Amino acid sequence: MSLLATGTIGIDTVETPHGVARDVLGGSAAYFALGASLLTPVRLVGVVGEDFPSDFLRVFKNRDIDLSGLETRAGAKTFRWHGKYVGDMSSAESLRTDLNVVGEAPPRIPDHFTDSGFVFLANTHPAIQRTFIAQLKAPKLIVCDTMNLWINGHRDDLLKTLGEVDGIILNDGEARLLSGKDDLVTAGMEVLKMGPIFVVIKKGEHGALLVSADEAFTLPAYPTRQVKDPTGAGDSFAAGMMGHLAAIDRFDGPALKSAMARGACIASITIEDFSMRSISAATPAEVEKRLARYKSMLSFD
Amino acid sequence: MSLLATGTIGIDTVETPHGVARDVLGGSAAYFALGASLLTPVRLVGVVGEDFPSDFLRVFKNRDIDLSGLETRAGAKTFRWHGKYVGDMSSAESLRTDLNVVGEAPPRIPDHFTDSGFVFLANTHPAIQRTFIAQLKAPKLIVCDTMNLWINGHRDDLLKTLGEVDGIILNDGEARLLSGKDDLVTAGMEVLKMGPIFVVIKKGEHGALLVSADEAFTLPAYPTRQVKDPTGAGDSFAAGMMGHLAAIDRFDGPALKSAMARGACIASITIEDFSMRSISAATPAEVEKRLARYKSMLSFD
Repeated sequence: MSLLATGTIGIDTVETPHGVARDVLGGSAAYFALGASLLTPVRLVGVVGEDFPSDFLRVFKNRDIDLSGLETRAGAKTFRWHGKYVGDMSSAESLRTDLNVVGEAPPRIPDHFTDSGFVFLANTHPAIQRTFIAQLKAPKLIVCDTMNLWINGHRDDLLKTLGEVDGIILNDGEARLLSGKDDLVTAGMEVLKMGPIFVVIKKGEHGALLVSADEAFTLPAYPTRQVKDPTGAGDSFAAGMMGHLAAIDRFDGPALKSAMARGACIASITIEDFSMRSISAATPAEVEKRLARYKSMLSFD
Repeated sequence: MSLLATGTIGIDTVETPHGVARDVLGGSAAYFALGASLLTPVRLVGVVGEDFPSDFLRVFKNRDIDLSGLETRAGAKTFRWHGKYVGDMSSAESLRTDLNVVGEAPPRIPDHFTDSGFVFLANTHPAIQRTFIAQLKAPKLIVCDTMNLWINGHRDDLLKTLGEVDGIILNDGEARLLSGKDDLVTAGMEVLKMGPIFVVIKKGEHGALLVSADEAFTLPAYPTRQVKDPTGAGDSFAAGMMGHLAAIDRFDGPALKSAMARGACIASITIEDFSMRSISAATPAEVEKRLARYKSMLSFD
């Protein structure tokens, strides 16, 4: 079943204790598309400016990613982010964010994408997320991400969006902020009341928790010793989840758990190098290899 | 194979957001013995004072726990601890600690216990831990716990003890303090250099990590929504681990992982009520039931 992704495609500069990557490909939808395309074809919807380096497109073209929803807007500049991670790299300090074209009118979903069944709305203004939803003709599963900015400043808008999606993937801090609850299972249950049928709470190195009406369970992170740049970990996790769900065309409980396992494996690939270096070089065989190791790690008598 | 446990047996007063338990059975060896006895017979070595309520012994007598190494010392008072947990209960504030008899000469291991193959040395002064080791005739696997007090103030003594044990179970903060490393896998590898063949790092609600020369893996905590009193969680985790290893008389990699799973299940039982209430009422069937649910949680296609 077709998988549509929206979100930012940008130019990042990232500093971590392991080095600096300047003016590299970044953005939630870029990480998502590269990760998900290891599992299923991806339809990408986004907008960049005239300054977007055309050679950045090569990594997408090497994959089964349909770029016909990628608009290059005349007279506009590409979204830029400069972030820095220190210490245990558990969170980034944003040194500079230039919204540029992301602050203008959102891109349109091309007509031939509007029949998409599985849809991921990466983090952006919740009202814009709803404009994408309104363009879909027969969605089966819509999942969104969000961030503190919208939870704090645009809560009513976000609640409207939550009433229109089937799932939400957010991190532990965002889940606590949105729900007002410290305990993450309780937080997830509060978020369920806002509309979604499942909530996935990402806990970074501590893995991820799924809460639905039927169950709550945690899977640990895929263990990797060489985290160089955590940027894109969350979008890569979502990519593994949504890529698998679209590939098997299901989203029941066992499917969601299998999907989270793929998310853990694909996120672990992304963070092992700067920007898209490792995720763009990865293969489906590498995902399968990590999945086998992950399953083995979680198996015991 | 026989399992010997040493550590404190005391009288606790514990305050949590869910209530207060005054003058109840506490102590690392008490939690350990009750947890491990759900899986294998336990030989308990400890010392209490004349004030120790004899009815506190009933919970041990209901289990396969040999109390012939439990000394009631004339003229001495029992170890007492008063602790308080607030907020998310991730750590206790010690309001009062009276070492009493625990500050005096340690108990002796009875002659008929000195052939024990599996040995758990719960947290106490590392020099005292070594006096226990010196009394053992043919140990197969010695595992110890420790705490910040010894890491900070008695490091040389602790390093000597680490040179004489096979495994150590400690929490994330202690592992970072002992190793000087933030990343927990790296911290575990540093601790391996100090002597043990495996290091288990407990991460509270985030599960536990095992590091050995061959592997590093994480298992999540067993999910429970009703944490009333976290006291004894770590000792119960160790109990599940050591109880299982002694029961199957192995401590290879797969055995250690199976043992950690039992640890997660038994710790989850302990924290669902104050003091020993839930762990003393638990049955082997309850452990099996949780283990089946835990396995199912960690299984996916």
